[in-house]
Amino acid sequence: MNIDNCGEFALIERLKKCVTAPTDFVIIGISDDASAFETEAGGITLMTADALVEGVHFNLSFVPFRDLGWRAMAANLSDIAAMGGWPTWATVCLCTPSSCSVEALEALYGGMDAVAAPLGCRIVGGDTTASPSGLMISISLLGQVMRERMTPRSGVKSGDLFCVTGHLGGSRAGLEVLWRGHLGRPLPGCFEEAIEKYLKPVPRVREAAAMGDAAAIHAAIDISDGLSSEVHHLCRMSRVGARIEGGAVPIHADTEAVARRCDAKGLAFALSGGEDFELLFAVAPRDAEGVARAVEAATGTPVTIIGEAVPPAEGVRIRGQDGGWDGLPEAGYEHFKDQRSAVSKKADG
Amino acid sequence: MNIDNCGEFALIERLKKCVTAPTDFVIIGISDDASAFETEAGGITLMTADALVEGVHFNLSFVPFRDLGWRAMAANLSDIAAMGGWPTWATVCLCTPSSCSVEALEALYGGMDAVAAPLGCRIVGGDTTASPSGLMISISLLGQVMRERMTPRSGVKSGDLFCVTGHLGGSRAGLEVLWRGHLGRPLPGCFEEAIEKYLKPVPRVREAAAMGDAAAIHAAIDISDGLSSEVHHLCRMSRVGARIEGGAVPIHADTEAVARRCDAKGLAFALSGGEDFELLFAVAPRDAEGVARAVEAATGTPVTIIGEAVPPAEGVRIRGQDGGWDGLPEAGYEHFKDQRSAVSKKADG
Repeated sequence: MNIDNCGEFALIERLKKCVTAPTDFVIIGISDDASAFETEAGGITLMTADALVEGVHFNLSFVPFRDLGWRAMAANLSDIAAMGGWPTWATVCLCTPSSCSVEALEALYGGMDAVAAPLGCRIVGGDTTASPSGLMISISLLGQVMRERMTPRSGVKSGDLFCVTGHLGGSRAGLEVLWRGHLGRPLPGCFEEAIEKYLKPVPRVREAAAMGDAAAIHAAIDISDGLSSEVHHLCRMSRVGARIEGGAVPIHADTEAVARRCDAKGLAFALSGGEDFELLFAVAPRDAEGVARAVEAATGTPVTIIGEAVPPAEGVRIRGQDGGWDGLPEAGYEHFKDQRSAVSKKADG
Repeated sequence: MNIDNCGEFALIERLKKCVTAPTDFVIIGISDDASAFETEAGGITLMTADALVEGVHFNLSFVPFRDLGWRAMAANLSDIAAMGGWPTWATVCLCTPSSCSVEALEALYGGMDAVAAPLGCRIVGGDTTASPSGLMISISLLGQVMRERMTPRSGVKSGDLFCVTGHLGGSRAGLEVLWRGHLGRPLPGCFEEAIEKYLKPVPRVREAAAMGDAAAIHAAIDISDGLSSEVHHLCRMSRVGARIEGGAVPIHADTEAVARRCDAKGLAFALSGGEDFELLFAVAPRDAEGVARAVEAATGTPVTIIGEAVPPAEGVRIRGQDGGWDGLPEAGYEHFKDQRSAVSKKADG
């Protein structure tokens, strides 16, 4: 069977069956934002890895090397934040065409370091090797978390409220602006906020820590494939349903303006745009307001309640502008369903 | 400056300068087989990462997917062994063309698991994504080691003896056999041992443990780029010179036979062939024989004394068949010096 016909998630399920089952020390194996295993001292180590491929995940025509390094590292830091943890050590594998300049790679590493180092996270090793075609960056990142602070995808309880940090859809809006500019059809207007959100997303590590300080967070996931996809992930792994209030999803004015110029809606960007690297999390109703206040006080990042977890029989639904409830399509970005570059795919979208 | 003109090791030095210096917890950063950092409980965690790229590190025309998975994982396990440690957890990033079959990837994962699981090491996560061109595998691996058992590259003392596990040059011999067969010009003879050595190298994890049980091992490195290159690495990082006895380098009869048919010498395969994944290590003279006996008793793998560490002013030299001393050229495999595939490069000799 070809991967095209299998899909990314079915592929992962099949590959999981090819490896020996984890030992008792493994608390979370293949399935979550990061794996988690108990260390000798009883602490929990988190480990995550992500690969970014030129022509699939980024386009060097409009992404500077420094920002590319930032984004690649931010994606991994975000996975550790989504487990309630704090990032510690990273290794970087770089497969690069020999035509690449050393200065470009220095900018790439500078960007990775710029987002990691202020969090106390260090690049400690890796591998550099030649690539016969495009650039490929793969980062592996470790983190630490206390057991009672861990936020796996499977922890949502029916009745919990779903919350998100920051604003959604901004990364997709920024990509539209850059992509259309690259094609020589720039959108009229100045959208610095959206461009910044795409090129330099801020991983919500401090926010995750403030959340955990304020209350018991039942579950979390980072929004890398779009809100729809992440809601479905949480619901599937927690065996709950969801009611999402479409009108409550926080969308920046820039995002709405860009979407309008693309004959789209900001909400569509939020639901399927991906790469916002905000956190979607679930808490008991009594804790939600307190968590929101605490995160905003500690970090300046707003937290918005966007819906609630319900019994699984109710399914995963969203209330639209007309007040009616519709099934929420799982319209996230799956790598193998479409081999066109993510950029053109999203910009075509 | 282009990477071609910079070289792999100079590039790593430049990139190291782009990242914030490690914290006090980092015992070994970018420079060794693996990085090492202190964990909360005072233990030491090792972390290593390696990327394998189609057309640079492997050729799918004559490397089955299962063996490719084995080799990729073995290369990482070998790096942990070279630090005196034991491997624990791995993440795997796979960038794959959509034309790849799911069954092929299952074989790949099966091969990785087959070499890791018997050591108690588990694949706990990773990332699968599309690749617009060839297959790319990047593995990140954690390990554990006690501080007094750690064997960094910098620990050789003048007067130490250099030893190696197993036989050298076999991987290169196996590659010659496979490559010439692939070109339709097969070498006469049957060289199962050499082919096995290339396709399924055994990482010397158990041997490293037996070495550490037997005596204080001062330094170690795994032979991934050829013996010459690794001797130079150890000497540079330990600020010593070396006298290597060319006639003492252990070479399997198969390797000699293949080399002869290629109008080469087995010793040349051992010095520059690479990917043997044997260990080169340094011990005090009084301990060498005991370590060799202990490793062979525990694992069946022979250990051979091949030379000694001398003051740095003597340089790095090898004694040839004529009994004279020559400088040992640092003829290891550097990725960016030659963009032809490793396979064709090595088979071209």
